[in-house]
Amino acid sequence: MVGGGQLARMTHEAGIPLGLRFKLLSDTPQDSAAQVVNDVVIGDYRDLATLRAFARGCDVITFDHEHVPIEHLRALEAEGIPVRPGPDALVHAQDKGVMRARLTALGAPCPRHRIVADPADAVAFAAEVGGLPVILKTVRGGYDGKGVWFVRSPEDAEEPFRAGVPVLAEEKVDFVRELAANVVRSPHGQAVAYPVVESRQVDGVCDTVIAPAPGLPDELAGEAQRLALRIAAELGVVGHLAVELFETPDGRILVNELAMRPHNSGHWTQDGAVTSQFANHVRAVLDLPLGDPRPREPWTVMCNVLGGDFPDMYPAYLHCMARDPRLKIHMYGKDVKPGRKVGHVNTYGDELDDVLARARHAADYLRGTITE
Amino acid sequence: MVGGGQLARMTHEAGIPLGLRFKLLSDTPQDSAAQVVNDVVIGDYRDLATLRAFARGCDVITFDHEHVPIEHLRALEAEGIPVRPGPDALVHAQDKGVMRARLTALGAPCPRHRIVADPADAVAFAAEVGGLPVILKTVRGGYDGKGVWFVRSPEDAEEPFRAGVPVLAEEKVDFVRELAANVVRSPHGQAVAYPVVESRQVDGVCDTVIAPAPGLPDELAGEAQRLALRIAAELGVVGHLAVELFETPDGRILVNELAMRPHNSGHWTQDGAVTSQFANHVRAVLDLPLGDPRPREPWTVMCNVLGGDFPDMYPAYLHCMARDPRLKIHMYGKDVKPGRKVGHVNTYGDELDDVLARARHAADYLRGTITE
Repeated sequence: MVGGGQLARMTHEAGIPLGLRFKLLSDTPQDSAAQVVNDVVIGDYRDLATLRAFARGCDVITFDHEHVPIEHLRALEAEGIPVRPGPDALVHAQDKGVMRARLTALGAPCPRHRIVADPADAVAFAAEVGGLPVILKTVRGGYDGKGVWFVRSPEDAEEPFRAGVPVLAEEKVDFVRELAANVVRSPHGQAVAYPVVESRQVDGVCDTVIAPAPGLPDELAGEAQRLALRIAAELGVVGHLAVELFETPDGRILVNELAMRPHNSGHWTQDGAVTSQFANHVRAVLDLPLGDPRPREPWTVMCNVLGGDFPDMYPAYLHCMARDPRLKIHMYGKDVKPGRKVGHVNTYGDELDDVLARARHAADYLRGTITE
Repeated sequence: MVGGGQLARMTHEAGIPLGLRFKLLSDTPQDSAAQVVNDVVIGDYRDLATLRAFARGCDVITFDHEHVPIEHLRALEAEGIPVRPGPDALVHAQDKGVMRARLTALGAPCPRHRIVADPADAVAFAAEVGGLPVILKTVRGGYDGKGVWFVRSPEDAEEPFRAGVPVLAEEKVDFVRELAANVVRSPHGQAVAYPVVESRQVDGVCDTVIAPAPGLPDELAGEAQRLALRIAAELGVVGHLAVELFETPDGRILVNELAMRPHNSGHWTQDGAVTSQFANHVRAVLDLPLGDPRPREPWTVMCNVLGGDFPDMYPAYLHCMARDPRLKIHMYGKDVKPGRKVGHVNTYGDELDDVLARARHAADYLRGTITE
């Protein structure tokens, strides 16, 4: 796996029972996954020679993030190294312009959008879709709200162009909530769909995920799952695909983003599904038969644990374990910095209010925003 | 953790979400746990200097097996290194003579037993308990049926004395089945009890575990749990304690063996309990609050996967995953040898017959004793 973040850490964890030999390419020995994996290569994923050396002895390469240059992946593939998901799929997760064009061609519902040339063109786009505000996104390099601008005025439209990367304009969608439809697809073409979840963001960062999305009509849930399965098949995705969606007030869904790797909206599956997204991602990239994606409990909730003002989270960690013996804590081995994702908690049970309150309390207590 | 077997492998897996730094002392780099842990020291656990060097930088030492010499553990403790479980507890898991004497002093129900001096004394013991057959055990070094002899004739009584280790004689108990009462205790004295399970052995090796033990009267289950909690407290156990029990035809329980580490009879907890034995063992040795030991499902079954005649288990592994997407496979990364424990499978659900059949099928198919 290329990339030493928490997704690689949790993928390794899920691979242990499968009897895997897991090899990691990590930026530093301190990275989240590098702390817990035996076979770690330290190196820069942007360097083809490093990737090539790393790939030696691997049966298949997969990714913790979407930042490996596509041309490097094509070079590895040309040398016979299986890369999953492959570059032809992954380009849609790397480049939002390519993604929007392809989804539109497939007839997948998207917000109105087009590539804009400069701030004036962005303002012109706004006029086409009913006026400001609109969303501008650099087509590459964004995550967790980075690379995304909420443009309220012509002046706001200038900043996104400063990076020198093409800029995609999208209408500001009036949505009632965000959903995620997560699926896993294997090279055989076997695919599984997890229940559609509700994803709540705070400041552009995933905060809470509720599985399944409360009150979502079966028909719309089925539509979202079918859409995600179709995107996975049409784009040739291998592994986990997260399709982030907007649910509109009139009961439609629109695709917001795609991610082709285990995804924050699927962390609930570690404790709430028969087979976790991490286990199924591994099974898919190795072309093993996929595991059952069904939920084990009526409700599962995930809350991210962000760093707060106190670098020492240990007393809070003790408190949360003692307060709720059913709490499932997942820490990433990262130093605490304000706003940094350092872990998540999962809770599950029969009553959504209770399950939500337990996860919320633990995440807030660990961050230090509450003290009782 | 000292020892690189599958128990260490699965303890590391359970420690990853807790944000632990896990350090391993392993005999070889190929050992089951050494394949998946980052911080591995290769060395001989029988050598005090090796243990001392390994312990440097550890907050606490725990064990994958019971074979570290007690005098070395006392030396480490004297140097201020926390050893959990400590030598005063662990001696009862290492020496069956010490265990029997202590349990008898506590009034814990045991088979009739005494240390026997020679084959003639063993025969004399048999006469005291109603005649042959009796069981002879070397007090140290046995596991998985090794170091245990079923003595049917005076001639059978000779072999056990050849190792030069004291020999314990025990009456042959007439039992209807074997049970295990598993508990976890922390230095704080917090303790949790898992449901009592039924453990089926084949040729002295654990074959199948059913959680909870079918048809066990609540009163007897409670008695077994209380007994295990009391043994853990009286012996000062820290971490997981497995109390292997005989259930007699007249509805009593007798202690067979003790193990102070995660135990084969607790593997079902990985998929069937809120908190696995491995997670709770780690929480206990670090004096963290313990997690909920309750079952998540009406029935969970574990079957060990033993090596069969075919060294390549991969086709069977594929088949089992495809046949049963709910199957939870746990492989240890070991080479397949006939009769060797190379993994286990867990299944769970509402109907015991179905759950048992699924686990049994997978274990038999992986071993190669069935082909459909």
